[in-house]
Amino acid sequence: EDRARLLIKCPDQPGIVAAVSSFLRDNGANIIESSQYSANPEGGNFFIRMEFECPGLRGKRTLLETAFSDIAQQFNMEYDFLYVTDIKKTAIFVSKEPHCLMELLWEWQNGELIMDIECIISNYEDSREAVESLGIPFYYIPANKDIRKQVEAQQLEILKKHNIELIILARYMQILTPEFVSHYPNQIINIHHSFLPAFIGARPYERAYERGVKLIGATSHYVTNDLDEGPIIEQGVERVNHRDKVVDLKRIGRQIERSVLARAVKWHLQDRVIVDGNKTIVF
Amino acid sequence: EDRARLLIKCPDQPGIVAAVSSFLRDNGANIIESSQYSANPEGGNFFIRMEFECPGLRGKRTLLETAFSDIAQQFNMEYDFLYVTDIKKTAIFVSKEPHCLMELLWEWQNGELIMDIECIISNYEDSREAVESLGIPFYYIPANKDIRKQVEAQQLEILKKHNIELIILARYMQILTPEFVSHYPNQIINIHHSFLPAFIGARPYERAYERGVKLIGATSHYVTNDLDEGPIIEQGVERVNHRDKVVDLKRIGRQIERSVLARAVKWHLQDRVIVDGNKTIVF
Amino acid sequence: EDRARLLIKCPDQPGIVAAVSSFLRDNGANIIESSQYSANPEGGNFFIRMEFECPGLRGKRTLLETAFSDIAQQFNMEYDFLYVTDIKKTAIFVSKEPHCLMELLWEWQNGELIMDIECIISNYEDSREAVESLGIPFYYIPANKDIRKQVEAQQLEILKKHNIELIILARYMQILTPEFVSHYPNQIINIHHSFLPAFIGARPYERAYERGVKLIGATSHYVTNDLDEGPIIEQGVERVNHRDKVVDLKRIGRQIERSVLARAVKWHLQDRVIVDGNKTIVF
Amino acid sequence: EDRARLLIKCPDQPGIVAAVSSFLRDNGANIIESSQYSANPEGGNFFIRMEFECPGLRGKRTLLETAFSDIAQQFNMEYDFLYVTDIKKTAIFVSKEPHCLMELLWEWQNGELIMDIECIISNYEDSREAVESLGIPFYYIPANKDIRKQVEAQQLEILKKHNIELIILARYMQILTPEFVSHYPNQIINIHHSFLPAFIGARPYERAYERGVKLIGATSHYVTNDLDEGPIIEQGVERVNHRDKVVDLKRIGRQIERSVLARAVKWHLQDRVIVDGNKTIVF
Repeated sequence: EDRARLLIKCPDQPGIVAAVSSFLRDNGANIIESSQYSANPEGGNFFIRMEFECPGLRGKRTLLETAFSDIAQQFNMEYDFLYVTDIKKTAIFVSKEPHCLMELLWEWQNGELIMDIECIISNYEDSREAVESLGIPFYYIPANKDIRKQVEAQQLEILKKHNIELIILARYMQILTPEFVSHYPNQIINIHHSFLPAFIGARPYERAYERGVKLIGATSHYVTNDLDEGPIIEQGVERVNHRDKVVDLKRIGRQIERSVLARAVKWHLQDRVIVDGNKTIVF
Repeated sequence: EDRARLLIKCPDQPGIVAAVSSFLRDNGANIIESSQYSANPEGGNFFIRMEFECPGLRGKRTLLETAFSDIAQQFNMEYDFLYVTDIKKTAIFVSKEPHCLMELLWEWQNGELIMDIECIISNYEDSREAVESLGIPFYYIPANKDIRKQVEAQQLEILKKHNIELIILARYMQILTPEFVSHYPNQIINIHHSFLPAFIGARPYERAYERGVKLIGATSHYVTNDLDEGPIIEQGVERVNHRDKVVDLKRIGRQIERSVLARAVKWHLQDRVIVDGNKTIVF
Repeated sequence: EDRARLLIKCPDQPGIVAAVSSFLRDNGANIIESSQYSANPEGGNFFIRMEFECPGLRGKRTLLETAFSDIAQQFNMEYDFLYVTDIKKTAIFVSKEPHCLMELLWEWQNGELIMDIECIISNYEDSREAVESLGIPFYYIPANKDIRKQVEAQQLEILKKHNIELIILARYMQILTPEFVSHYPNQIINIHHSFLPAFIGARPYERAYERGVKLIGATSHYVTNDLDEGPIIEQGVERVNHRDKVVDLKRIGRQIERSVLARAVKWHLQDRVIVDGNKTIVF
Repeated sequence: EDRARLLIKCPDQPGIVAAVSSFLRDNGANIIESSQYSANPEGGNFFIRMEFECPGLRGKRTLLETAFSDIAQQFNMEYDFLYVTDIKKTAIFVSKEPHCLMELLWEWQNGELIMDIECIISNYEDSREAVESLGIPFYYIPANKDIRKQVEAQQLEILKKHNIELIILARYMQILTPEFVSHYPNQIINIHHSFLPAFIGARPYERAYERGVKLIGATSHYVTNDLDEGPIIEQGVERVNHRDKVVDLKRIGRQIERSVLARAVKWHLQDRVIVDGNKTIVF
C-alpha cells in the first residue's frame, strides 16, 4: 500500500495545518482523513493526525521524512511517520482467564486487528493448545511475586528476540515492575476489570458486588508505573441489578472486557491514540 | 383507588408465597404485579413486593392489617402495607443549580411522579419564582458550615410542619449531620454527580476531567451518615472524549443527573425500592 | 439437580398465585424465582413462571404433574413443567458467515449456554473444521431455491434422528418453507441483521447505508411462516456515522448479532420466553 | 466574537486542505477545529468544515469572501462562510404535546441552544402561556387537512415577517405541502416518534406495541417532500419490555424525542450538519 499516517504534537500557533497540508500536496500525497485538536487555542498544545496516500511511497520514505524535518523544526514539532505496511509486532500476555485472548485472536483472524502476533506469554499452560493450533509460539513462564525479577528477565529476552513493539495484557494478573515498563513506554495496553477510577486494584467484581453498584465496567489503559493509573484509552459499562451475584458480574464483565480491550487495541494499531500527559487523545 | 402494595422481608423458608397469596385471595384481593428475591435460598433473606387490587380497600385497611399480623409473626416478617391513595408528602432541597429541581417539577406536572410537593427549601433565592409560580411554598434558608446546627433546626421545623415523608436533595450542596439524617432513615434521596464509588466527595467533574475518563456518570442513593456511601438506587453514564472540557462534562452530566434522579424518585414513590443493608433491591 | 420451572398461561382471575404456590409448598417445593404478568387485569391472560427446588424431584415428576392437572383444569391453564436436568437437544444451522455460530460455541464451552449441541447443518463446508474439532457432527447439505424440498427433507431426517428440540438459525441464509416450520413451532430462533421492522428481507446493511441511519441493529425472533415477522425475543443497536461504509456496518453489525442471538438463546434455554400471539413475554 | 465556520463541498482531488488552510493563514485566521470527509477518495465528493478565529473578522467579511472565490472556482466548490455572531432566526411549530417545545425552550434558556426564537406557531392554544411568559410571540393558527393552503399562507407570512432561517417541528402533527417545504430547503427539522425507517407515518407507538419490539426510538430529520423520508440527523432508542403498554411507550418515547431533537437542533445551529443527497454528514 501507499498509505501512511503522520502524527504531530506541537505548541499551537497559526499556520500549522497550512504548512503540513501544503507539504503533503507538494510531495504528491492526498489526505484521506484528518483530525486535529487544540488543548487550548491560547498557548496550549496542538495535535494532528493525517492519513494520506502517496503513489510510490515505499521508495520515497527517506526523502519525505528528511524534507519534513524543516517544517518540524520551524513549528517545534514532535512527530511520527507511520506506514500502514509496517505491521506492529505484538506479544500478548495472559494468565488463566482466556476470554480476552480469544477475542483478540478471533478479531485478528477476521482481519479486524492488523498486527503480527509474534508470541503469547503466559504463567499458565491453559491456552497453549488454542494458541499453537494457530501457529503462534506459546511461552509458559510460571510467575509469582517472589521471582518477579527472573520472570521479567526471561520475558524481556523473548520480547527482544521477537522485536516486539506492542504488549497486550489480556487479563495477565501479575504486576509489572517499573524497570520492565520503562522498556515499553506507551506500548503496553492493559484491560482492568472495573470502571476506573472505581475499584482500583484487586478483586474489583467482589467489591462492586459489596458496594451494590447498578452498572459495572471495564477500562483499557496504557501501563505506567502507577497501578491502574495510566492513560485511559477506552471504557465500557453494562447494567446489573440486585439479582447478580459476583459470578454474574464476572460473566457480564467478561463481555465488556472483551469489547473494550479489542477497541483500544484496534485504535492503537491504527495509530489513533496520542498520549498527552496522563490522558489520551483518540482520533 | 383500591390498590395497595405489600412489601415483605423475612428469613427465607418454603411456603411464604403460598401463605401471602392465599391470605390476599381469602381477603378478596387480586395480585396485579409480584416480584420476589432470595438473597440466598439457603439461610438468607427473602424479599417480596406484591401490588394488589381489593374492592372497598379503604374500609378494610385495619381489618387486613390486623389479620396479616398472624402470618407476619409466623414467618418473622418485617412488612409494610402501602396504599396508592396515600400520596407521599415530599420536600425538595436545592442549591444554585436548578436542573434537577426543574426535571422533578416537570415530571410531577406530567403525572409521572405521583407525590405531594409540600415545599422547596433552598440556600439560594434563585429558584423562588419558578417554584412559587406553581403554588409551592419556597423557604430560603441561607446555609454554611458554621451555622449548620441552626440551619438544620429551621429545616426540621418546616419538615415537621409539613409532615414530610420524603426528602429529595436535588443538587443541594450542603452536608447533612447524622442528627438530621437520623430523623429520615431511607427517606432522603440524593443525586451525586459522579459514577460512585469513583470521585466520592467534592468537584467530581473536575476530577473526572483530570483523570481523563471516557465515560462520566451520576448516582442516586439514599443518604446515610457516610458521605456518598449510602445504598445506591440508580446510576447512569454517558460517553465523553478528549475534546470535552470541565464545562462540557458538567453540561453532559446535567442530563444524566436529571434522568437518574427522576428514575430513582419514581421507583421510591412506587414503593419499588427495598433497602437491604448497604444495597438496594429495586423491584 | 432438583430444580424445575413451571410455566403457566391462563385467563386472569383472583387466586391463581395462591393456588399454584400452595400446591408447590404442599409438595415440598421451595420457590426460588417467580415472575408474573397480567396482559390486562380485566379479562386478559395471566402468565407466570416459577422456578422451584424440590428434594427428590426426579422420582416425583409423574406424581407432581398428575396432581397439578386438577388445578390446571380449574383455572383453564396451559402449562409446562420443565426440568433443569432435561437439557435441550439443539441443532445449529449456518451458512457462510461463522461469527454467530462461533459465539454460540464459545458461550456453550464457557457454560453460559446449557444445551446439548447435537449437530451443525450448513450449506457450506467452511465451518466443518471448527465444529468437528469440538466433536460435534457436521452435516453439509448444499441448498438453493430450486431444491428446497429435497434439502428440507434431508434436514428433517437428521433433526428427527437427533431428537432435536431447538433449532438456531445462526445466519442461515435460506428461507424455510411453512411445511418445515410447522414441525418446530416456537422452536426455531433466527437472528435477522436489522432492527426489525426496519429493513425486512434481504440486504439490510446495504439498505441501512442507503437510508443514512445513525443506528444499526439486529433482531432475534422465533420463526413463523411470515418472513422476519415472528415474535421478537431480543433486539440491540449500535451507533454508526456517515463515515461507515457498508463493510463497516457489517462489521459493527456482527458484534450486535452475536450478542443479541446469544441472549435470546440463553433466555429460551432457561425457559424464560413465553410466546403470546405475535409477541414474547421474557421473564 | 471573531469566530466563523467555513463549510465546503467539492469533487475530491489532492491539494484542497492545503489551499484552504493556506488561504486562512494568509488572511490571519487560526483554525480552531477542522473535520473532513471523503465520500470516496477516487472520484467522490470531499466535505470539510473549518472553524476559525480571525481578529477583526466583522470588518473583513467581504474581503475574505471575495478573496476566497478564486479558490472556490479553481476547485469547483460549493461553500458557505457562517459567522458565529449571525444568530439564526428560528420558528418553532408545535401541536398539543409540549414536551419537545419545553426541552428546546429550557436548553435555549440555559445557553445550550444559541438561536433567536422569533415565534412559536401552534394549531392549539395550550402552550401560549408558557411561551408568552418568556416574551416570545405565540401565533395560534387552527389547522386541518381541508384548510391546509390557507393555513400555510398565514404561516409563511409570519415566517417572512420574522425573517426565519430555521423551522423546528417540535411534534407539529400536520403534514406540510411540497410548496411550503420548497421555501425552506434543509431548513426544517422534524422529530418523528419512531426509529425510522420502522413505523413511517401515523401512530408509531401503537404499531410498535402491536409488533412487540424490544426497543423504541425517535428520529430527527430534515423535512423533504416525502413523508418521514428526509435526511436523518440523529436517532436514539431505549429498551422496553412486554409490560409496557402504549401509554408507557409514549412516556418513554417522550424522553427520547426530547433529547434527540435537542441534539439535532444543536448540531444544526453549530453548522455541523451537511446534507449530501438523502443523507447527512455530521461533523
